[in-house]
Amino acid sequence: MMNSGSEKQRPGEFELIAELFAPLATAPGAFKLTDDAAVITPPAGHDLIVTTDALVEGVHFFANDRPDLIAKKSLRVNLSDLAAKGSTPAGYLLVLSLPGRIDTDWLRSFAHGLAQDQREFGVSLLGGDTTATPGALTVAITAFGHVPAGKTIRRSGAQVGDLIYVTGTLGDAGAGLACLKEEGGSPSAADREYLVHRFQVPEPRMRLGAALIGLASSSLDVSDGLLADLDHMAETSAVRIEVEAARLPFSPALQHLWPDETQRMLQAATAGDDYEIAFTAPPHRREDIMQAAVDTGTTVSEIGRVVAGKRVALLDFKGHTIPVKCPGYVHF
Amino acid sequence: MMNSGSEKQRPGEFELIAELFAPLATAPGAFKLTDDAAVITPPAGHDLIVTTDALVEGVHFFANDRPDLIAKKSLRVNLSDLAAKGSTPAGYLLVLSLPGRIDTDWLRSFAHGLAQDQREFGVSLLGGDTTATPGALTVAITAFGHVPAGKTIRRSGAQVGDLIYVTGTLGDAGAGLACLKEEGGSPSAADREYLVHRFQVPEPRMRLGAALIGLASSSLDVSDGLLADLDHMAETSAVRIEVEAARLPFSPALQHLWPDETQRMLQAATAGDDYEIAFTAPPHRREDIMQAAVDTGTTVSEIGRVVAGKRVALLDFKGHTIPVKCPGYVHF
Repeated sequence: MMNSGSEKQRPGEFELIAELFAPLATAPGAFKLTDDAAVITPPAGHDLIVTTDALVEGVHFFANDRPDLIAKKSLRVNLSDLAAKGSTPAGYLLVLSLPGRIDTDWLRSFAHGLAQDQREFGVSLLGGDTTATPGALTVAITAFGHVPAGKTIRRSGAQVGDLIYVTGTLGDAGAGLACLKEEGGSPSAADREYLVHRFQVPEPRMRLGAALIGLASSSLDVSDGLLADLDHMAETSAVRIEVEAARLPFSPALQHLWPDETQRMLQAATAGDDYEIAFTAPPHRREDIMQAAVDTGTTVSEIGRVVAGKRVALLDFKGHTIPVKCPGYVHF
Repeated sequence: MMNSGSEKQRPGEFELIAELFAPLATAPGAFKLTDDAAVITPPAGHDLIVTTDALVEGVHFFANDRPDLIAKKSLRVNLSDLAAKGSTPAGYLLVLSLPGRIDTDWLRSFAHGLAQDQREFGVSLLGGDTTATPGALTVAITAFGHVPAGKTIRRSGAQVGDLIYVTGTLGDAGAGLACLKEEGGSPSAADREYLVHRFQVPEPRMRLGAALIGLASSSLDVSDGLLADLDHMAETSAVRIEVEAARLPFSPALQHLWPDETQRMLQAATAGDDYEIAFTAPPHRREDIMQAAVDTGTTVSEIGRVVAGKRVALLDFKGHTIPVKCPGYVHF
């Protein structure tokens, strides 16, 4: 059925949404969600950074996942993009497409998750749109941050001779998804909980991201898998990126789940949803980067180098290329 | 099925999307869609205005509608919000959730529609996200505009004594939807084509919107229906808005379709999807507004006044209130 003006389908529900979400609109330019649009202007001398990512039920999360965690992941995958650009987050717009089964409890939990993460990351809801859908629950967020003018850390800045770094550990989220799908391995309860949490509630590296301004030559967040994402970086920077397999950082839980080193390394280098930051910097910045890691409480590992050439390569301990099925997924 | 990294489901298709959409990213801050985020900074002395609206298959459009028209409507409903705030459009982000049936021809037509409207309205694609969905095709757009600092025309500025105006004609889109659903009336082919076009390709009033800065005291775009939207304006402005039914502007096609004056007036005042601008201004601005209408080639009709009190009221030619079922739909 088609309605002109979707709000007419379930007026009570949309009033509830307005009631639940208005307290989240703390920024003055959000006008408490009572206007057609929001005003967001970066501080003087700063650029505004914008990014958008959508999560779809059955593609990015399960229908019965906790609503507060769906809310957090939806926000965090966007904040992670902002972090990779060196920007400080400010606010976000929220587009919800809701199937008929969504009830009051679901909406309250979803709003609660957003409220918690707004405090955690210092952001405000700025506006949005809610529509009914005959299909899958979809959460699309557009996030805004600011960065000193002209200082945005691009994907395209990697230079021959740079070293490559990555934050945190790789492959946990992919393993967490495998656990949820009851695939591959019999983790302990504690390991399973850790890995699933890494899949459901990624940790955007906001503080390190901002600290990389002036240090990193290029940066991106690892969402499609380390090798696929570094392949994008190699392409836009017109360089070759060589990653040393033995240097990839793994969590204890991942080492327990996948004791075979080769399997672990290949899966972790190609699994998605890590939301760690991979970045490059010239060798003389090494000490500064390690200091930034300490200052921001972020684990940072050096994993390779930038050389002349094309594409990304995974190298074994002898420096030989390890064959990887890595189709170089295209971001839009 | 759930994939971590939805791009992996149909890599060929997502490469095609990147290929089709990259030429639309004409703004320097869009980085040709090769980065995680875009940079958008308003000109000095201007605020940035942001708005977001999503269209869902089966709710806002039909599955077999022309893809180029779906693209145009998705963009235009957002531009209409920018126009109502007095802002000049600059760019937009696009989130597409695509069911499996979407093919190359569909995507080409969709991109073609965007390209045409980018030229029409002087905007650039800035970035976006594409995901697969097991459900309904969903197009979510976030649009950006700029306005001289502090000059955004709010919903909340209507003052007692102001006059109320609306652009264009009312009810055409609602009648167009009725035609598509084969409901109510037997229009001529020409009238049907006109009304359906008004539903499928709304005309955002960009030039008049920008000309209203400094003239209008409050403004919004008519998306849920004139009375429902003016009720929002009355609430946020803490005033009463009285609309004279006899002054509502109708197209010839609507008058042919609904010859009964009362039925036409009630339906047109409550139908959604008009995307005309309703605004208020003090009486001494009347001449300036009529001049702005002429200068921008926009029809503007005076339809009522702002008085002390609450809510919106529709008045007959004797000044009596016409009872209208008008639940005051809640925007989020």
